[in-house]
Amino acid sequence: MKRTVLIMAGGRGERFWPKSRKNRPKQFLSLTDDGKTMIQLTVDRIRQLVDIEDVYIATDRAYKALVQEQLPEIPEENILCEPVGRNTAPCVGLGAVHMAKKYGDAVMIVLPSDQLIKYNAIFLTALDDACAVAEQGDYLVTLGITPDRPETGYGYIKFLPDRPLDRAFAVERFVEKPDLETAKSYLAAEQYLWNSGMFVWKVSTILANIKRYLPETYAGLQRIREAIGTAEEQTVMERVFLGFQTVSIDYGVMEKAESIYTILGSFGWDDVGSWPAVERLQTSNEFGNVVNGNAVTVDTWRTVIQGGEKLIAAVGLEDMIVVDTPDALLICKKEHAGDIRKVLENLRICNCTEYL
Amino acid sequence: MKRTVLIMAGGRGERFWPKSRKNRPKQFLSLTDDGKTMIQLTVDRIRQLVDIEDVYIATDRAYKALVQEQLPEIPEENILCEPVGRNTAPCVGLGAVHMAKKYGDAVMIVLPSDQLIKYNAIFLTALDDACAVAEQGDYLVTLGITPDRPETGYGYIKFLPDRPLDRAFAVERFVEKPDLETAKSYLAAEQYLWNSGMFVWKVSTILANIKRYLPETYAGLQRIREAIGTAEEQTVMERVFLGFQTVSIDYGVMEKAESIYTILGSFGWDDVGSWPAVERLQTSNEFGNVVNGNAVTVDTWRTVIQGGEKLIAAVGLEDMIVVDTPDALLICKKEHAGDIRKVLENLRICNCTEYL
Repeated sequence: MKRTVLIMAGGRGERFWPKSRKNRPKQFLSLTDDGKTMIQLTVDRIRQLVDIEDVYIATDRAYKALVQEQLPEIPEENILCEPVGRNTAPCVGLGAVHMAKKYGDAVMIVLPSDQLIKYNAIFLTALDDACAVAEQGDYLVTLGITPDRPETGYGYIKFLPDRPLDRAFAVERFVEKPDLETAKSYLAAEQYLWNSGMFVWKVSTILANIKRYLPETYAGLQRIREAIGTAEEQTVMERVFLGFQTVSIDYGVMEKAESIYTILGSFGWDDVGSWPAVERLQTSNEFGNVVNGNAVTVDTWRTVIQGGEKLIAAVGLEDMIVVDTPDALLICKKEHAGDIRKVLENLRICNCTEYL
Repeated sequence: MKRTVLIMAGGRGERFWPKSRKNRPKQFLSLTDDGKTMIQLTVDRIRQLVDIEDVYIATDRAYKALVQEQLPEIPEENILCEPVGRNTAPCVGLGAVHMAKKYGDAVMIVLPSDQLIKYNAIFLTALDDACAVAEQGDYLVTLGITPDRPETGYGYIKFLPDRPLDRAFAVERFVEKPDLETAKSYLAAEQYLWNSGMFVWKVSTILANIKRYLPETYAGLQRIREAIGTAEEQTVMERVFLGFQTVSIDYGVMEKAESIYTILGSFGWDDVGSWPAVERLQTSNEFGNVVNGNAVTVDTWRTVIQGGEKLIAAVGLEDMIVVDTPDALLICKKEHAGDIRKVLENLRICNCTEYL
């Protein structure tokens, strides 16, 4: 069966402010040493598995030019522009109806555009295994990540080791982000995986599940499907998307559906959720500092500095994030990285939209 | 007797990097809310006491243009340019020989150019009292500051409460910067004052003391005195200053001299020794933050932010100093403020002189 990929690239990535902005969110930034952006790396990764004309990018209308600039090899008709973001369920559905219209049916690999994977050969094997399962029937297959720390920032997948299907295992349930004690027990139990947000299924299977669990969304998707390629397409997209319920594919479908299977992945996955994660991705010096740009550090430890030409002098810092851009500077204690959104809230309140 | 003022303005003020630079040290910066520079405030302060044509500025040759720009009312011949810095003893001596040549003798008030005083009327009264003592005989009068905290960053003056002279008291000795325990005992003893570096004496008195305790410096000063106003002045200044021993007036004269008296000053003196001192000078908000420029603070406490147009977002900071300038940014834990000089050392080593 034809294999396709849908890359979801509509996120705003506020947690990487001030490097990420409303006009250039995280997936369009380079956060690694190699200079490629997150979405470029995502496409590079699956080139061996899928033809480029079978790769779809779902993104916000505002980012179409960025996608074309960074991924000129993607056919324009494969760039699916959402008039407004409604979370991942409408996004996945949009990809599915486009693929259904073009291919009838296909195995559809759904990938976020802003994650990193260290061991690509292992990742491709895992995707291949997931495709093999998905092809066999109406299964929803997720890539679960074998945890190596009691992470409280991710949702988990509980699987059943005694119910394998090929190289996958049946999923018992999805669980919310745990507290530290619970996360430790999950790690010890060896029956929990991180929910990576990567999925594999047939187009027909996911559409059937959307029809069952999100019937209104399904109805909207059908209207879009009929309009694809017609003069009405833009108008219908606009009207339907504005009416869509905002709901994730996890909450809207996966947590309710049956016949879910998971592939156990150990391929150096990182969702690069916020600035402190950059430490895991880039080379740190003997003081644990990750420094990009023109910087002098004195008695500074475990600190991430992302600058440019301006000289940044850090004296006596510990566990900090410093991000300098031409018009905005962030200085943040690592453990407060979650509060960066409060900066953006403040900026919205004072109508300083130029910094968003 | 004629009263004159010598303002010493040759310091480099590295502790205020990156706002202070080799080309614009601390005394030429504004660190207060009112926008005036330190040296402008110093001159403003004594205008009621002394005619402007009797105010002398001793500075490094490199800063002459800055002095003229910031203090256009000072006669050019009163700007005494040192070819090279040799600490305060040669500087005071240079002022003294100029005044001796012009006035024969005078009461000479010596003031640093980079201190702040909150209650100027009280300060002027103290200076007036000091002048009255100095006029009476060959006394070296210092302004001692009544301490209000066990400060370890200043030298102290021990005075003798039972040996008054008018409104002054005899000084028993000068003591070096103490450790915290010693500083606490000084505060409790009520017989110790902070050494402010402000002095009052007759020109003839200080020259006699330099002759006695620093005879080589005195000899050089005599050569300068003879050359003042001649075609040779520049050449002589250059040759003599290069040959001067580098020595402070405190170490070279005051710690050895006799007949030293001190006036007890309580006029809101602050030497603004380093960035953390800015907190004492400017209005802080309810979180103890002192913020200048365009900043958003989230969960940030007791932090000094000195910025400009660039947006500075501070998240989860405590007891930090953030100073942003167009080409260099400092982020420093307050207790490490003394290590700012290490940044400058690093910059010298890597030959990044544009930032010094």
